[in-house]
Amino acid sequence: MLVSYRLIGKNLKIEIHITLKNGVLDPQGKAIERALGSLGFEGINDVRHGKFIELNLSETNKETAKAQAEDMCRKLLANTVIEDYRIDIR
Amino acid sequence: MLVSYRLIGKNLKIEIHITLKNGVLDPQGKAIERALGSLGFEGINDVRHGKFIELNLSETNKETAKAQAEDMCRKLLANTVIEDYRIDIR
Repeated sequence: MLVSYRLIGKNLKIEIHITLKNGVLDPQGKAIERALGSLGFEGINDVRHGKFIELNLSETNKETAKAQAEDMCRKLLANTVIEDYRIDIR
Repeated sequence: MLVSYRLIGKNLKIEIHITLKNGVLDPQGKAIERALGSLGFEGINDVRHGKFIELNLSETNKETAKAQAEDMCRKLLANTVIEDYRIDIR
């Protein structure tokens, strides 16, 4: 029964954004900012570079999925000392 | 006049997601998928790893800002041969 539920159950798409916390130096962001400037783009500031992870989770309840994604971030994906994470469920 | 407009003008926050195109091998995503599995997370598939770039642009028109961000992606941020990009304006 569990197997068939999993097979027919809808997947949730989870998007995780991991960025450096404010105040933590972001050299990649600075490099992008300078490169865009030298290409002629104007009025750009505060460029921050981070990671983006998307995955499918065989779960139908958004709350459970979000809790599980937070657990993933804390245990593996983000370094919570210097990084923030944001989770979007679709 | 331009200067004062820029100083008082509202900034738009632009979020750019860069991911590998479907069909392009994503070893980082596979590594994350395996690592999550070995930590006991179940029902996870299709993990894709990408880049996330956020920046402030001193522009008030969302259409202009989006066009400019697309230009940045094509010229510098994304390798459009193997990568897709998505732009969100806030």
